[in-house]
This record gives sequence, structure tokens and C-alpha cells, in this order.
Amino acid sequence: MALPFQDIPKRVRVVEVGPRDGLQNESRKIPTEAKVRFVDALSLAGLPVIEVTSFVSARAIPQLADAEDVLRAIRRVAGVRYCALVPNERGLESALAAGVSEVAVFTAASETFNRHNINATVAESIARFVPVVRRARAEGIRVRGYVSTSFGCPYEGSVAPQRVLDVVDRLMEVGVDEVSIGDTIGIATPNLVVDVCAALLARIPVERLAMHFHDTRGTALANVMAALEMGIAIFDSSAGGLGGCPYAPGASGNLATEDLLYLLDGMKIETGVSLAAVVAATSSLAVILDHEPTSRYYQAHQRSAGSASQE
Amino acid sequence: MALPFQDIPKRVRVVEVGPRDGLQNESRKIPTEAKVRFVDALSLAGLPVIEVTSFVSARAIPQLADAEDVLRAIRRVAGVRYCALVPNERGLESALAAGVSEVAVFTAASETFNRHNINATVAESIARFVPVVRRARAEGIRVRGYVSTSFGCPYEGSVAPQRVLDVVDRLMEVGVDEVSIGDTIGIATPNLVVDVCAALLARIPVERLAMHFHDTRGTALANVMAALEMGIAIFDSSAGGLGGCPYAPGASGNLATEDLLYLLDGMKIETGVSLAAVVAATSSLAVILDHEPTSRYYQAHQRSAGSASQE
Repeated sequence: MALPFQDIPKRVRVVEVGPRDGLQNESRKIPTEAKVRFVDALSLAGLPVIEVTSFVSARAIPQLADAEDVLRAIRRVAGVRYCALVPNERGLESALAAGVSEVAVFTAASETFNRHNINATVAESIARFVPVVRRARAEGIRVRGYVSTSFGCPYEGSVAPQRVLDVVDRLMEVGVDEVSIGDTIGIATPNLVVDVCAALLARIPVERLAMHFHDTRGTALANVMAALEMGIAIFDSSAGGLGGCPYAPGASGNLATEDLLYLLDGMKIETGVSLAAVVAATSSLAVILDHEPTSRYYQAHQRSAGSASQE
Repeated sequence: MALPFQDIPKRVRVVEVGPRDGLQNESRKIPTEAKVRFVDALSLAGLPVIEVTSFVSARAIPQLADAEDVLRAIRRVAGVRYCALVPNERGLESALAAGVSEVAVFTAASETFNRHNINATVAESIARFVPVVRRARAEGIRVRGYVSTSFGCPYEGSVAPQRVLDVVDRLMEVGVDEVSIGDTIGIATPNLVVDVCAALLARIPVERLAMHFHDTRGTALANVMAALEMGIAIFDSSAGGLGGCPYAPGASGNLATEDLLYLLDGMKIETGVSLAAVVAATSSLAVILDHEPTSRYYQAHQRSAGSASQE
């Protein structure tokens, strides 16, 4: 009997999205200095890419209105890429001025979701990227493209893998370096991950594909296993499991960085990231949140730390 | 490229352990009639095996002191096996009198854990089973054997797969029909599941092996995927994710039946169980608990039901 998991990647890049995708959903206002400390702690944990903030309008997402201040105040660690989400050219200019090393643009595989999320068709949203991507590349800045609702849409239901490939194809034509395939509502199961990856890998090189899973229904790490089996070696996650999607009712919980690292460490897959240091980063932020971070690993760690200190 | 998950089982038996393994850890006293309603709802959901209660001493586990009353009051559904945990011959006699269709005995792969848990060596605990198993088989009653800490021990750390096989071998010699391999502290990752399954499958027929995962660190469904890849087709789970292990600091969260079913339904693996009906069973019990059930699927379902009712 051939054992499973013999040919999976030996090294994985973890893309930390907590400071942006996580914090943007927090109801309580987070002080700029707490964000800076959080990002600095994540840098020191060894995370190779950190999505620090977003330059969408402060009216749309007041929590991230201090994007420039955060980017200017963080302590850069050599080799770490600091990314910001940018919706348009103006956002890009602000991001460049604040010294980003990567920007992210976003669209969706579902028309209805994209309309609800950014009030544009998928084609319109991609057309808006064109000058953003051109300018970023001229500046030598890497571009990520997010494709939301790639495994299902809260409005449309199932999404065909071919549709995801069509959108990814367009992003590649436009010049995006890497696409992040998002399970925005946390609905995917491993067979669907295999289907979507198989469709994408027919045309897209594996090193340009990242997976962005949500743990809404507990399947995120099972989906990571499926993606690893397909050769995927870039995964987005959020420290503490912070964040979700404000436009998808019932959806919450980005895959937690701690849970992802626990899995990868156990599987002897190298990441260069210290799980203990990520827990410390989450812990320093958690004290000012109005809820417990959802990461299973984080919660278990805090409980056992609590019971140890009572001994 | 050969796709993964092509040869996994097409049908899985879900063993519901919530009424016993879940409720025994609840701090708030659950009325007998609530337990009976819970078991009856689980029967109607289509679960093929339900571990209803335990005949360990009422002093050790006061929550299950009404074992006989519960077993006598539940409404039996044809084809469903109703199981009870029994520590010794006296427990077995009570269980038989109350009309069980299966009993479960328990030991561990770790000596230190077994001593802390039931104050006996592993060999002593198995020796105690001998008359229990003999008498159960004489009555035509099936016997499950639990092997705790098969993937790691809170006191000893790692546990060798060969050690798990040794214990399982003894249980098979003693006449146990099926063994349930427990990740008591929720520490397993998929590679370890492959190692343990590979060691066991060298000598034990796959149809006599069940896996009992905990979601303490979020890896339970990833571990289910690994076990499915190894051909395992029996999984224990607990409605709502109720229960954990009171002797393992920081450990909580049996794999939730809802999360397991969401995965298996998505993978088109037959179980004969209605996910919606399990959610309803958990929901009816949850109103009298002092905490929210930990199942990710259950929580997402309750949130979206809540937001739908506000529309």
C-alpha cells in the first residue's frame, strides 16, 4: 500500500493576513501602536510575508484608517515582505509612499459577491487593476491577487472550478505575480480543493498559487492537506484566527496561523516560523480585543498555560 | 498526476459518543429526561451506534449516575446499537439488565496516563476485561475497546506506534470486536495518523479499527482525511463537540459530529446520518448547558440562523 503524503512540499510559505484581514473585522477600535506591536511581533516570529494594512477608504473600513501610520512605524526585518491591500491607483500611491514591498488587489469568482463586496462586476474590478499592476511592477513591487468565493458564494451557491480558472487567467494576463484562492465563506471540503487545484494547475504554475482557507466549518486544515497533496506550497492564515468576512452572514474565522503551523510542524514541513512567537504575538493583541481569538491551538495553549500557573 | 482521495472508503460508520464522553465532562447537572431526549434525537438522526452512558462509579462520575434510568427510558430505533462504557463485571451486569446492545471497555497506550486515569497498569486493566468480554460475548453483545493516548500522552509525551499495536493485539486476543484508537489530548497530525494506522494494519483487519480524534489543536478533520486515506471507515465523534478529557490539562473538544458529517457529506461519503438532525439534537441540549458547543459547523449554523431570523 502506497502511503499518502509522500510527495507533498517540504517547505511552505505562510502569508500572515491577520493585521489586515483579521483586524478589519474587529468591532473595537485598535490603537495604532497596538497594531505596530502586533506586526513587529509577527515579523520577529519569522513570517516571510505580512499583509500589514489596507488602503481602502477609511469610510468603508474605519479600523484601518491609520494604514500609513502603521506602515511607517513598523520595524522592518530584512527578508520579510510587507504587503498592503490597494483598491485603486490612489491607494497604490499612498502604499508606495509608505514603503510597502508588495501590494494586493482583489476580485471574486462570483459576480453577485463581487457586486455586494465592491459594487463592481468581476471584469470591472480587474480593469481597475490594470494601471495599479502596471505601476507596481514599474516600481519593482510584487502584486498578489485575491480571488474570493472560489469554492462557493453566499449568494450564488456553488462556483465552477472553470470559472475560478477564468478569473485567475485574467489576473495572470494583467500581470499579477501570485493569486490567492479564497474560500471566503469557509465552505470547501478536500474534494472541492482537489477539483479547483486540478483546474488551475492545468494552466497556472504551482509556485504562483496560494490558498486562503477559512475554518468556518472546521475543514480548513483538511483542505490544507488536500492542497498540499496537489503540490500547493503557499498558504494564507491569520494569527489567532482573527477575521472573517463581514459580507458573508455566518462566516467567521480565517484559518489560524497557529493551527496551520501546528499542522505543518507536525508534518515536518519547514516554514521558518516560530509557533511560540506567533502565540505570543496573538496573546499581546488579545488583551485589547473584546473576544477570545478563535484559534484552537491558541485556546489550548492558553488553557494549559493557565492550569500550569495554578499549580 | 494521480489525484488524492480516489481510493478512500465510500461509506463510513459514525459512532456517536456525545451522551457519554461528552456529557461526563459537563459541570452543570443534566436532568435524566434531557439526556433521554438527546439520545432519542440522535437515534432519529440516523446515527448507527450511540454510546449512551457509562457504568463507572457514580462517585467518580456523578453526571452519569442515572445510567440505568437513561438506558431504560430511551426509545430504541431498529438497527441502532446502544452502547455503554463498563469498567468491570458489576458494571456489565447493570448494563445488560438495562438492555445495552454493545459495551465498551477502556485502557491506554501510555502506562502513566492509565495509572492517572484508572489507577491500574495497562496489563491490569486488560486483565479486568477478560471476564467482562467473555460474559458479553456469551450474551451475544459486541465489545468495543478504547485505547487512549495512542498518539501522545500528557505525561510521557510521544507514544510509539508499536506500543499501540501491542495493546491492540492484547485486546484482540481477549476478544474485543473493535478497537477505537484515541487521540485523547488532540495532539495528532496526519503523518502520525498514517504511522499508527500503518503499524496497526500490518496485523489488524481494517474493519475492526475505529479512530477517535479530538479537535484540541484544530487537526481532527485533517487526521480524519489521513485515516480515510489509510482505509479507516469508522470514526467516533460527539454531537456539538461536547466533551474532552478531564485528566489531560488543556485538552478539550472531541471531534464534533457536525464537523465530521460536513466533511463526509462534502466528500460524498455515505453515513446515513442527517447533519441537520444532529444540529437539532445538539441545539435542544445546548439550551441547558453553561457554554456554547465547540463544533465549528454548529456555531456557523447558529450564527446564520440567527442573522436569517433578524431579516
